[in-house]
Amino acid sequence: MTERRVTIVGLGLIGASLGAALRHAGWKVRGYDPSESVRDAAVEYGHVDTAAGDRAQALADAEMVVLAAPVSQIIELAPVGLREAPHAVVLDVGSVKTPIVEAMEGSDGAERSIGGHPIAGKEVSGPAAADRELFFGRPFVLTPHSKTSEKTLRGASEIIEAVGARRIIAGAAEHDRIVARTSHLPQLVSYALASLLMEGDETYAGTGLASMTRLALSQPALWKDILEANRANLREEVTRLQKTLDLFISSMDLEAEMTRARDAAQRLRLSSPA
Amino acid sequence: MTERRVTIVGLGLIGASLGAALRHAGWKVRGYDPSESVRDAAVEYGHVDTAAGDRAQALADAEMVVLAAPVSQIIELAPVGLREAPHAVVLDVGSVKTPIVEAMEGSDGAERSIGGHPIAGKEVSGPAAADRELFFGRPFVLTPHSKTSEKTLRGASEIIEAVGARRIIAGAAEHDRIVARTSHLPQLVSYALASLLMEGDETYAGTGLASMTRLALSQPALWKDILEANRANLREEVTRLQKTLDLFISSMDLEAEMTRARDAAQRLRLSSPA
Repeated sequence: MTERRVTIVGLGLIGASLGAALRHAGWKVRGYDPSESVRDAAVEYGHVDTAAGDRAQALADAEMVVLAAPVSQIIELAPVGLREAPHAVVLDVGSVKTPIVEAMEGSDGAERSIGGHPIAGKEVSGPAAADRELFFGRPFVLTPHSKTSEKTLRGASEIIEAVGARRIIAGAAEHDRIVARTSHLPQLVSYALASLLMEGDETYAGTGLASMTRLALSQPALWKDILEANRANLREEVTRLQKTLDLFISSMDLEAEMTRARDAAQRLRLSSPA
Repeated sequence: MTERRVTIVGLGLIGASLGAALRHAGWKVRGYDPSESVRDAAVEYGHVDTAAGDRAQALADAEMVVLAAPVSQIIELAPVGLREAPHAVVLDVGSVKTPIVEAMEGSDGAERSIGGHPIAGKEVSGPAAADRELFFGRPFVLTPHSKTSEKTLRGASEIIEAVGARRIIAGAAEHDRIVARTSHLPQLVSYALASLLMEGDETYAGTGLASMTRLALSQPALWKDILEANRANLREEVTRLQKTLDLFISSMDLEAEMTRARDAAQRLRLSSPA
């Protein structure tokens, strides 16, 4: 079996964790990050074999490229990556897919590009928090576009298999509608609940409040990027939540509403390894 | 030192955990619960020394009584407990204080009564889930009313000390306003988020969604009781959350809003043992 090689663009939590998982699977991993301290950490922790501060150099002769930058940057990186790595399969791992896949579809070499989103993360960031088990057993959504070739789909699938994730194939628009509900709304709500707290409230804080504000410990810069890229879907889910809260607070049969909600929470718990 | 004796009315999660903690501290614990299977479990697990199915018998000659029933039942039990245990200090542990403290204040023997609320819980219920460490290091709010005597305050404080909790003294109205924000709103939101989920969403579920819907695994009957007893305060907090979500979703500077929220979440994390 020939040695597989991959270049990872962006060595934050997700990029470095992918590097660690792929190295563990025997791949040769080259990294790129504009920050020297991030590159040094990724190498030092052994998440990548080498890390370059020159993107074109890191991409040259790559056979597989993973774009693991913030969403707004991936949109700009997609055509650049396809050009600077002219033979590589280019997969991204951003949390919103429509704008990225549209950028890919309009680029030269579009057939070598495919969207991706591993459903995994932590509220901490950076290569120091990376974990080669992060994707193990977790869903990893692929969103091919109209020009994605079979070969590209196979290449991206190899990465998913190597990190031990479960492949799901979906359309970008469908993906974005679903994650607005399953990820982006809970994230926004966690920030909103935290922002309501008043001085002295911490005296009364229980474990419930702690679990409902845990997501609000995440990096605002990263999430701003994600939430803004999916704002239209998120706005719909916010409206649905507001209406549900109105319904609950005025309900004559709150117990029935809550029982239906608990059933949904239990189904989620049973079907998800999280 | 004389042996301390306590009668706990209601042997669910909180009542049985209190029994276990007090027994561990050397107290003699008598329990009452209308359900035979709950009584048997509480005795079998060793959370109480004895359990009676006759309330008057369990309360006779008690020197300390803890009312650990659902909130709506405590409101009715307060005058009964004061009458059936005519020399005892009567402390309740319901999550909403105003209606309970009002019932106490209007009862014969009011000077022997005091409201209480241990800020501790789990999303599971019943004596099988009880844990004698549940209150250790946690806040335990006492809400004395206008007629509560010094001796009653001291008696309730002994219980708090014995279970290793941190005593906080507050007015019932203040308590209810704060927990609407720190506990009841997060609980309602968790149910609301779970109720928005659609078939197939579980495929995309990450750890973030799991933590935001964990509270929705709780007993709807118990929470309906709590939320309804604090509905006016909760309604205000729901409105504040809805407005915050509107602000966030339309914000020109979402990152700044989220950064302020993260600061609040971090302060909470630092000051709370949860």
